[in-house]
Order: sequence, then structure tokens, then C-alpha cells
Amino acid sequence: MKFLRYGPKGREKPALLDPEGHIRDLSNHVVDLRGDVLHPDRLRQLAGIRPETLPLVEGTPRLGPPVAGVGTIFGIGLNYRSHALETGAKPQSEPLVFSKAVTALSGPNDPIVIPRNSTKTDWECELCVIIGAKTQYVDELHALNAVAGYAVINDVSEREFQKERGGQFIKGKSCDSFAPIGPWLVTTDEIGSPQDLDLWLKVNGSQRQTGNTSDMIFSVAFLISHLSQFLTLMPGDVIATGTPSGVGMGCTPPVYLKPGDVVELGVEGLGKQRQEVVAWAASA
Amino acid sequence: MKFLRYGPKGREKPALLDPEGHIRDLSNHVVDLRGDVLHPDRLRQLAGIRPETLPLVEGTPRLGPPVAGVGTIFGIGLNYRSHALETGAKPQSEPLVFSKAVTALSGPNDPIVIPRNSTKTDWECELCVIIGAKTQYVDELHALNAVAGYAVINDVSEREFQKERGGQFIKGKSCDSFAPIGPWLVTTDEIGSPQDLDLWLKVNGSQRQTGNTSDMIFSVAFLISHLSQFLTLMPGDVIATGTPSGVGMGCTPPVYLKPGDVVELGVEGLGKQRQEVVAWAASA
Repeated sequence: MKFLRYGPKGREKPALLDPEGHIRDLSNHVVDLRGDVLHPDRLRQLAGIRPETLPLVEGTPRLGPPVAGVGTIFGIGLNYRSHALETGAKPQSEPLVFSKAVTALSGPNDPIVIPRNSTKTDWECELCVIIGAKTQYVDELHALNAVAGYAVINDVSEREFQKERGGQFIKGKSCDSFAPIGPWLVTTDEIGSPQDLDLWLKVNGSQRQTGNTSDMIFSVAFLISHLSQFLTLMPGDVIATGTPSGVGMGCTPPVYLKPGDVVELGVEGLGKQRQEVVAWAASA
Repeated sequence: MKFLRYGPKGREKPALLDPEGHIRDLSNHVVDLRGDVLHPDRLRQLAGIRPETLPLVEGTPRLGPPVAGVGTIFGIGLNYRSHALETGAKPQSEPLVFSKAVTALSGPNDPIVIPRNSTKTDWECELCVIIGAKTQYVDELHALNAVAGYAVINDVSEREFQKERGGQFIKGKSCDSFAPIGPWLVTTDEIGSPQDLDLWLKVNGSQRQTGNTSDMIFSVAFLISHLSQFLTLMPGDVIATGTPSGVGMGCTPPVYLKPGDVVELGVEGLGKQRQEVVAWAASA
């Protein structure tokens, strides 16, 4: 099942996508797609509702991130062999973990706002894991039981803020609009293996990133198990699992986003995003 | 005014401390000490309530963190000259920023739980800033207007997880119980300058840390201004502003916490904390 949230920013309503691709409102069944609603068992219940009994949403409303009440946005650095190669970094012995401030969250088609004083705003197409169950000290074999579903995330990154401002990565990962998630939370039953999904990203129509999650150094199951050794994962936490090669920083010379650019990206089975790039403005 | 939250974990109620040091329940006035309640103007309104009109809370209940709805816990590394010296790190040109997962939050006197496979659990007495107003691109001169109040925080840190597990700091800063905050949120009018407060920490009665916030490399106002250049600070965000010298890692040989230890710490005007150290147990 594909779940989503639609409506103006901060006032999104929960919904699902019916077999014809229409949005069906879930407000009569759940307040929002947060916390306990995200448990895999609860999502299965919701997926069992006959879509034709749910109000049809007319038109093409704005989409928000398909998860509410996000506790922490975890990111994984250098997790694709191809991307590690382009950055010149030596191989990680264990996952490089950072976080993005939750204020960075935005909808899949909301604009990317270039922050003040930025000259190196970059893109990163990634598979996003949305946690559905409280999880601590889980082994790799059982780790995927913690997953509510998967989504597309653009782990937008300001490279100067990330790498040249005294550390750590969080400074360049947390600007407003730097975490577009969606369009949908796709439940695990719709995705075969999370380690065999194509990813792609275009800027102004030119292909910039192509990859497959099979190129991950640390698998989704490994990442969940690993994180759970250091902290307690909660329903609504999300993990951006790393990006394949083809980021702007890796080009010769580097290419960064500028107002007017259009970024499109997608992950196999999870839909696609489209973001217009705009300059920061005080009125925003 | 000193605000606090009391009661069982996850079910704390808002309260304030009356002039006699008794807890007075605020539940009839606010649902919790979160979000808009934390705006300095709103806190001033609450501080204007005559304490004798509020229900007296009998006994000595457990205290929770004095702030609810925490979005992000920011931490600042190596921000005291004395601590930077003991770690042997070269001086930071700009603040080193990391985060602690919000699941690390605990009450000021809750036990510190040593995580599984930990041999290097360490203490860090710090001044904690609690943000009260949404803040972006603020200059240093106006930065303190964003502050709801101050508190004590023990930025508990597992040094192997923090430094020897593939990065970044978040891995060693985020275990359950690693962010005891409180006992109180003390409003800014009760604190003269945040840059002239004594800090101290004892382990099993032995003095381990003594310092003063005047030893900070980057002031509270600078830190708020700096963070706000990279992200939007929200009411309920907290900033652990760094620790003076005297952490366990800095001893020769290093000294780390073990079950049965008792940690006590405080910051001038902000009260004190007391934590018993316990081993992780599956039933916890």
C-alpha cells in the first residue's frame, strides 16, 4: 500500500493511494501517519480498508512528507561503493552516521531553498527507510521487522557548511527544505528486496545519478541493526541510506544548484520527486 | 522563575517552583512545557500567576526533563579552553556541532544506563540552553532573545562509540539516558550573564569537574547566532554548550563510569542533578 499526506504545510491530512492512483482521505481512521499508526501491523489494518469507502480527494493537492512526528532523521555517509570512490574517501569499516535537523523536512515537490551565503548546495538521491516499531539491539536477521515502509529522499547537502565550517556534517544537512521525503510511504510488502532498487536523479533534464541499492556497502538491515546498538530507534524515525555516485561535488569541475534549476529524482517502486530551486527570501 | 515537569516518565505534568521551594502544578494553565508555551513572553505570563493559587504537589515526585516536545538536541564539542587542552585537540575556528538523538532525554535524577558493550561511558557537565522562539539568521546581539531559559545537562558520552566506530559523534551521544536535563528550566531574568556561571561535577563524592562558563571559546549568543545560519532553531530545541576540563577520558589513565557509581553535578543558579549508574538490562 502507498500512504501519503496531502494539504498545506503543517496541516497535512493522512491518505492512501487507491488502485486507480487516486488519493483517498484517511482522516476518519487516523489523526495522522505518526507514532503507533506506523507499526507494520497497524499499517496492514489500514491497508485492509476498502478504498471506495474513503472520501476521494479531488484535484492535485500539495504533498507533504508521508510521515509525521519524525523524531530523528539519520543519514549514512559514503554508503555506495560508487560514491565513496568519487569522493576519494577511504572505505568505511562501519557506517558513518550523521543527522539532519527535523526542521529540514519538506514535501517531495516543495522547492529547494538555497540558504544564505551558500555556493555549494548539492543533491543526493537516496532510499529512505521509515521506522515503524521501537527497536533496540536488533540483529540483522530481524532488523527489517522494524520498517514501516520505504520512500524517496533527496538528502540535500551544502558542501561548504558540511565540510569546511568546523564540523560536523549536521551543519550542511539541516537547512530548511533539505529533506524532501515522498511522495509515498510504500509498505514493505510492495517492495521485494530493498537491496535491488534502481535510483536516478536528473538536474534540468540531464541525468546526474544512476545507481542501484545493490551497490550499498552496508545493507538496510545492517544499518538498522547497527544504529540500534547505539540508540533506540522509534516509530517515525527515518534513515537516509546513502547516495550513489553522480553528486555535484563529484563533477570536474563541481556543479552546484542555482535558482531556477529543476531537480527530479526517483527510486524504483517508490515514485518520484520534482523540486524547483529558489533563492532564500526573508518572506519565505 | 523555575519551571519543571514532574511525574512518571512519559506522563510528566508541568509545574513551577514557589518561593518556598514547593512544586505547584500548572496543568490548569498549560498542557505541557512545550512549543508556544516556551516563548519568553508566554513564560513571563505564567511566571505572573500567583503560586498560592496553584495546587501544591505533595512529596518528592520524580522530575522529568523540564521541557517537552524537544525537536533536536544540539551539542557543541570542545567549547571550553580547559577541555580542548585536555583532549589535545587543536583550537576550533568555528563551533563543532553534533546532535544527540531525542530518545537520550531523561530526568535530572534518573539513572545513567551503561549501554551494552560499553567500556567508556563518560560524564560532561554543561550549561543547557532551551530555545523559546523560532530563530533563523539572528545576529549575536539579538541571539539571547531566542532563549526560553537555562538548565543543567549531563552530556553523557560513550567515547568508543563516539570516536572509534566509524563516526560521527552522534553514535556515542545518543544512548538512552545520555541526556539528563534539569531539574528546572530557569528563565533568563534569574540568570545575569550566561557567561559567568560556575559548573561542577563529582563522581562518588570526588570532585572531577570545576569550571566557569567564562571559559567558553564560543559564547551562548555566538552559538545561537551560528546555528541559526545553518538551520532554523525551534522552541523546544536544546543546546548543550560544551564541557570544561575534568572528563574521565582526560584522566591518566582514563576513568569511566561503572554500575554503582553516583554522579552529581550542577551549574550556578540552575540546581543540581544526581544520577546512579546502572548496567543495561533487557527488562529496563
